[in-house]
Amino acid sequence: VRAGIKPSGDLDLALVVSDAPATVAGAFTTNKVAGAPVQLCRPRVAGGRARGVVVSAGIANVATGEAGLRDAERMADAAADAVGVSRAEMLVSSTGLIGPRIPMDRVLPAIGDAAAVLSTDGGEPAARAIMTTDTRPKMSVRHLDLDGRRVTVGGMAKGAGMICPRMAAAQATMLVFITTDAVASKATLAAAIGAHLDTTFNSITVDGCTSTSDTVLLFANGASGADVDGHAGFVDSVGEVMAELAYAVVADGEGASKVIRIRVSGAASDDQARVAAREIANSVLFRAAIWGGDPNWGRVAQALGQAPGLELDPDRLDVTIGGVLLASRGEQTRREDEAAATLEASEVVVEAELGRGSGAWEILTCDLSPDYVRFNADYTT
Amino acid sequence: VRAGIKPSGDLDLALVVSDAPATVAGAFTTNKVAGAPVQLCRPRVAGGRARGVVVSAGIANVATGEAGLRDAERMADAAADAVGVSRAEMLVSSTGLIGPRIPMDRVLPAIGDAAAVLSTDGGEPAARAIMTTDTRPKMSVRHLDLDGRRVTVGGMAKGAGMICPRMAAAQATMLVFITTDAVASKATLAAAIGAHLDTTFNSITVDGCTSTSDTVLLFANGASGADVDGHAGFVDSVGEVMAELAYAVVADGEGASKVIRIRVSGAASDDQARVAAREIANSVLFRAAIWGGDPNWGRVAQALGQAPGLELDPDRLDVTIGGVLLASRGEQTRREDEAAATLEASEVVVEAELGRGSGAWEILTCDLSPDYVRFNADYTT
Repeated sequence: VRAGIKPSGDLDLALVVSDAPATVAGAFTTNKVAGAPVQLCRPRVAGGRARGVVVSAGIANVATGEAGLRDAERMADAAADAVGVSRAEMLVSSTGLIGPRIPMDRVLPAIGDAAAVLSTDGGEPAARAIMTTDTRPKMSVRHLDLDGRRVTVGGMAKGAGMICPRMAAAQATMLVFITTDAVASKATLAAAIGAHLDTTFNSITVDGCTSTSDTVLLFANGASGADVDGHAGFVDSVGEVMAELAYAVVADGEGASKVIRIRVSGAASDDQARVAAREIANSVLFRAAIWGGDPNWGRVAQALGQAPGLELDPDRLDVTIGGVLLASRGEQTRREDEAAATLEASEVVVEAELGRGSGAWEILTCDLSPDYVRFNADYTT
Repeated sequence: VRAGIKPSGDLDLALVVSDAPATVAGAFTTNKVAGAPVQLCRPRVAGGRARGVVVSAGIANVATGEAGLRDAERMADAAADAVGVSRAEMLVSSTGLIGPRIPMDRVLPAIGDAAAVLSTDGGEPAARAIMTTDTRPKMSVRHLDLDGRRVTVGGMAKGAGMICPRMAAAQATMLVFITTDAVASKATLAAAIGAHLDTTFNSITVDGCTSTSDTVLLFANGASGADVDGHAGFVDSVGEVMAELAYAVVADGEGASKVIRIRVSGAASDDQARVAAREIANSVLFRAAIWGGDPNWGRVAQALGQAPGLELDPDRLDVTIGGVLLASRGEQTRREDEAAATLEASEVVVEAELGRGSGAWEILTCDLSPDYVRFNADYTT
């Protein structure tokens, strides 16, 4: 529904509710300036049971002190009351401007409006309502059959800027809400998120800025009757939904024209590879070059050289862009323009082989365009 | 002189030579992918004596392997031979593209040309010749009187992009060459650089990208006859030249319209304040907001919240932009547009008081404009 938080008048409030009691697990931002909704949700999610979440977009309810915490609680209470469930089992999530308070006089009635129009096919408008600078809604679904029962895992996400999630389990602005009708314990849900968090949402970045509001929630209400505890297929399905949504966030990154898939291999460990890949992904110089169609491998080398604590032998470094080996053993082997044509694709693969060991990691980012800057000069996040 | 390295045909080779033997100290990039000139200079500078430096712009001679090291040595040898000094006392520095080799067939003759036109008033063309993406040459001079003798400290610098120097003593692309006619021991020179390196060049950033070629050299040839060993005034003068050049680099940052002076206070230690200030300075979201005239304090809070290892109490944070206190104790106290007018100045001061202790640090950066992106999409560094 429209609560009137977004100046545009677009949809800005969504309500996700399970008809039956549900188990829940989640992950939240590690940014020390965590929003009020995150602070409210952490202990509730740790409890492992929830009936739903009310999500608002336009104002993040961050840096709002005690009053902001009360606002978050009032939103959750209003949602719980409107759908007739225990107040302690309603979660809340908000995204948008840091600093201002959410106008309760508009949002609380809108929560009632949302409760009145709850429906089983409200996923798409809900995915639109949680958008801020996104250009399109992001949804993903997987089905699996378990002993003759069909289990569905569906998710939605928002996020386009201030995207560099570094979340810790059970503790964007990227918001991700995943629901399933599986019968699943809190432990299974937490394990499913935990198995994939680092390789999906924690391995994407748009701008290196870790949001104060990043939230992933996974609800399971058991409506399918299929118990997925101990079933690897369920964990895989959740992982596929997480990966698809993470990719969609990067592909819709503010001002982005293409996805950059950064693969680091040959590192001393996977952790070292991650440090290396993240440093390349956060290089504005490199991302600007890719936007310009310039397969600038030197900026890959430069980024690796400054990666904190990375064990690096510059003379063992191979760099491949778009499948074209541009540098071998630290020296340029080919003119960069031989790889330029590969940058016309919607996804560019950049590979750095460090020649030190078997550690590998992959990070997804997007190119940096003038539109990113223009956009963030105008938009007060 | 023009060696023909820069496609533009602009001046691209400079030679700095002392008539008399000189002491020298320096600092070099900590990027693990260090250019061949840096590798050649480190041991020579450690020796403490040098007669000069040959500087080329257009190609950095980085990631060029053994051949690149030989190129750097040939350039130094050619310069030493041309001016008739010991080969071991000539230094070399290069800036520009990473990957390609410097064309020796053009550069070696040009070094002879430069030696033929050495003059005492060649500072300005030399400062122009070392430029790459700079829009203007950067020079600074200080004089001090010592026991009736006049000592001059003069410096030049280049650098506009790939600027986030993290240099270690006695070890951009920022290149800085400072000369003085003082009588000074190697230890005095090293101390003068060491006293100011962290608060000047190591406290500026344009784009968070630490160059493979950052170099600061300080030569003293004693021509004034004034011995400055033990004179604090000399160290101060060197510091003033370093500070002026560092400021000039940021003010000429690629695409920049203004300098952002980030002051963090109330940190648990100066080191903590530095971590905090650097995180704000490297936020593309915040720098884009400043370009757009948006005093977005929330992005300051967001950046602080992700600063690695920073001890932060969000509810003790005060943020002031352009002298206007926008947030107090973690909550917004004023509409941000009340500070918008202050962003029209050529320098904006952003202050974050953490309320934890007495640690303080200041970092200079510049705003992020669409021109930065366009520029680095076209320019292969």
